[in-house]
Amino acid sequence: MKSFVNVAAGSDFPLENCPYGVFSTKANEHRRIGVAIGDQILDLSAVAHLFDGPNLKAHQNVFKEETLNAFMALPRAAWLEVRARIQQLLSDDCDVIKGNNDLRSKALVSQNEATMHLPASIGDYTDFYSSIYHATNVGIMFRGKENALMPNWKWLPVGYHGRASSVIPSGHSVRRPCGQTKPEGVDQPIYGPSKLVDFELEMAFFVGGTENKLGERIPIEKVEDHIFGMVLMNDWSARDIQAWEYVPLGPFLAKNFGTTISPWIVSMEALKPFIVDNMNQDPVPPSYLRHPDPYTFDINLGVTIKPEGESKDHEVCKTNFKYLYWTLKQQLAHHCVNGCNMRAGDLLGSGTVSGPDEGSYGSMLELSWRGAKTVQVGEATRKFIADGDEVNLTGYCEKNGLRIGFGECRAKLLPAEPI
Amino acid sequence: MKSFVNVAAGSDFPLENCPYGVFSTKANEHRRIGVAIGDQILDLSAVAHLFDGPNLKAHQNVFKEETLNAFMALPRAAWLEVRARIQQLLSDDCDVIKGNNDLRSKALVSQNEATMHLPASIGDYTDFYSSIYHATNVGIMFRGKENALMPNWKWLPVGYHGRASSVIPSGHSVRRPCGQTKPEGVDQPIYGPSKLVDFELEMAFFVGGTENKLGERIPIEKVEDHIFGMVLMNDWSARDIQAWEYVPLGPFLAKNFGTTISPWIVSMEALKPFIVDNMNQDPVPPSYLRHPDPYTFDINLGVTIKPEGESKDHEVCKTNFKYLYWTLKQQLAHHCVNGCNMRAGDLLGSGTVSGPDEGSYGSMLELSWRGAKTVQVGEATRKFIADGDEVNLTGYCEKNGLRIGFGECRAKLLPAEPI
Repeated sequence: MKSFVNVAAGSDFPLENCPYGVFSTKANEHRRIGVAIGDQILDLSAVAHLFDGPNLKAHQNVFKEETLNAFMALPRAAWLEVRARIQQLLSDDCDVIKGNNDLRSKALVSQNEATMHLPASIGDYTDFYSSIYHATNVGIMFRGKENALMPNWKWLPVGYHGRASSVIPSGHSVRRPCGQTKPEGVDQPIYGPSKLVDFELEMAFFVGGTENKLGERIPIEKVEDHIFGMVLMNDWSARDIQAWEYVPLGPFLAKNFGTTISPWIVSMEALKPFIVDNMNQDPVPPSYLRHPDPYTFDINLGVTIKPEGESKDHEVCKTNFKYLYWTLKQQLAHHCVNGCNMRAGDLLGSGTVSGPDEGSYGSMLELSWRGAKTVQVGEATRKFIADGDEVNLTGYCEKNGLRIGFGECRAKLLPAEPI
Repeated sequence: MKSFVNVAAGSDFPLENCPYGVFSTKANEHRRIGVAIGDQILDLSAVAHLFDGPNLKAHQNVFKEETLNAFMALPRAAWLEVRARIQQLLSDDCDVIKGNNDLRSKALVSQNEATMHLPASIGDYTDFYSSIYHATNVGIMFRGKENALMPNWKWLPVGYHGRASSVIPSGHSVRRPCGQTKPEGVDQPIYGPSKLVDFELEMAFFVGGTENKLGERIPIEKVEDHIFGMVLMNDWSARDIQAWEYVPLGPFLAKNFGTTISPWIVSMEALKPFIVDNMNQDPVPPSYLRHPDPYTFDINLGVTIKPEGESKDHEVCKTNFKYLYWTLKQQLAHHCVNGCNMRAGDLLGSGTVSGPDEGSYGSMLELSWRGAKTVQVGEATRKFIADGDEVNLTGYCEKNGLRIGFGECRAKLLPAEPI
C-alpha cells in the first residue's frame, strides 16, 4: 500500500492510518474535515464529490461540516466505505487526485500550515477507570494494600461523567487551577493554586453510529457499530483539590480545568491489525458485559515532559494500552445498559493507563508514589508538574514494518491566575 | 400590571412572569422561542422585528433560533431590555400586538396546541448537593448521625458532572433502568431492573452571558450576570444501582437514564420579589464564595404521584427552595474558580431540596427513610416509585396577590426494557 503523497519513514500517518481531523489554515479560516497522510492533509471538503458509493452518495454534505459529528452519525458501513475510498484516492495507482494538478493543489494542505481544532462537538464526555494497575496503585496509596480495589471494580467498568466544555485539542495551554485544598495537619481548607497538578495518560474513543433512544440499551453484540475511533487524552488532574472535594460525589474541579486530546481520530479499522487477547476477567462479568472476541489493542504509549526553556522532551513513562482490564466494548455496553442515550461525538476516556512496572505508570501520582520519590526529567526532577512544563503523550502501534501513530497530544502548564 | 391576554386567577404565568421556552405546533413543526402568558404563548419568532432597543436591535436573529442558547449568550443588559419590551408588548395599554389582528393571530399560540421542547441545547449539566437537610438525612442513613455531613460539605458547594444527553422536558416518559445491584446479604451483584427508582425534587438554573475563557474564573461579584433563569428538575435516581456503583467516582448509571426539567425558564428578574435572606453559613466560606447580598428564593415546591390508572395527583412532599445552604451565586462562582469555562445553556442543578420536617423531604429515599416506612399516595402506599407512576413537581412564589409559577415537570415511569 503506497500513496502518491510522500510518507517519511517513521511517520505516524501512512496510507494504512488515514485518521480524521478538523483543521483550518491562515489562507482559509473556515474549519474543515481532513485526513492526515504523511505530513499532508487531504481536505475532504474539497473532494466530497468523489464519495459516490452507495452509503455516501446521498451524504457528501457531511464533509462540508465544521465537525465530524454528522459523518460519525452515519452507520459503520459508511465509515468503511469512506475509508476504502480515501485509501484508493490517495494510492499511487489512482489518478483521480494524483493526476489532476488543480484538484491536487486544492485538496492537499501541509500540516505545517494547518491549525488543528477539536474533531467533534462533544455532547458528553465520560471517563472510565479501567486500568487494573492504576486502580490498584491508587487504592494502595489511599486505602492500603488489603482494600486496594473497591468491591465493584472487577464487576463493572467504573466510570463517571466529566466536563465536555474543557476538552481542548493538543497545542493549547492549560492553566494551573485554583481551588480549595486541605493539606495534612491543617485545621481548615486553604484557597489558592493547586500544588499537585498531574497528567493522566489516557486514551479515549469517540462514539458514532445511529443514536440509541433514551431507554433503549445497545447490546454488546452491536456496540462495535458505535465505536468510531480513538485519540490520546491527557486528563489533567489537581490531586490536592481532588482529595478534598471528591467525597462522596466524585472528582469535579480537580478535572474540569482542562483535558487535552490529540486532534487526529484513528479509526478502529486502522487499529484492527493490532488487536490482542483481552485480559482474563475473574470473576466473569454479568452477561451484558461478555463478548468472546478479542478487542484489546497493542498500542505503545508514552509521556514526555519538557521543562520551560528546554528544547527536548524527556520521557517519564512508557506503557501500553493493552494493560486495560475492561475493553472499549464493555465500557460502551455498560454505559447504556440502563438506557442512557449515546450520541455521535460523545467522548469516552479509558482512565489512566498504567502497566505492571514502575516505569509504566501513567501519572506522576504513581511515578512519584504520591510524592515519596522524585522523577528524573532530563537534568531536573519532578514530583508533580511545574509551571512552564510541556507535557506530551505519544501513542503508536508497530508490527511488520507498519506503524500507525496518533500524533501529538501536547499542552503547557501556565501559572495560576492571581487570586 | 395587566395584559390584554387573559390570565386566569391562579395561573403560573401572569405578565410579571414571562418565562421563556421552545415550542412547536402541529400546524408548524419548526421549533421556535416563546413566552408563556396565561394559557397562551407569545411566539417571539413572529415578533422579533419589534425588539429594536439598543441591545437587541442588531441581535433580533436570536429569536429565530431553535433554542434559547444564542439569546442566553447575550449580556444581561439584553435580557433586561427584552423582558421590559415583552411586558410592554403584552400589556393592556399597548396596541402594537393587541391592536393588530393579523399580528396577534400570528404571534399568540394556545399552550394546548403546543409541544414543549428542551429550551436550550445543554452543553454541560452539573448537579450540586446544596440542601443541608438532604445531605444530613442521607448522611445519617448511610454513615450514622455522628458523620452525617462530610468534612468538606460546609466549606464548598459539593457538586458533580451529570449527563446532558438524558435531560428531557416535562411530558416524556422515563424507563426503569437495568443495571447491577448488590442487595444486602448477597455474595455477587445481580443484573436486572432497578428495584429502588426514586425522584429527586430539585431546581436548576441555566447559565448565560458571555462565556468565560478556559483558565479565567468569574468572580463572585459578577456571577449574577451569568445566571439566566430557573426551572424545576426531577433528577430520577436508581438508589440500588447508585449504592453499588458510586464508590469512588460518584453516581453514574444511577442518574443518566433520565432527568426531567420543566420547559419554561423563569428569569431571575421575575423571581427578585421573592428573595429572602441567605442561610447563615458557619464556618464562613473562603473569600471567593462570599457575597453580602441575599440571593435565596422563597419558592414553594411540591411533589405529586399519580399511580397508573388514577386521575388524581397525590401530594407526597411540600418544601421550599429557601432551604438551600449554598446560593446559586456560590454554586456558579465555585464551578469556575479553577478556570472551568461555563457556556450559555449549561444547566446547574441544586441537588435535592429537603426541608427540616418529615413532610418536606425531597425524595422517596428520605420520605420512606430508606424503605423503613411507607408513604401514603392516595389510597395506595409507596416506598419507592412503581411502574406507571406519574411524578410531577410543582413550584411557585406567592406574595401580595402575585403568583409566579413554573408550570409542570411531569414524567411517567415505564417498566424496564426486557433483558
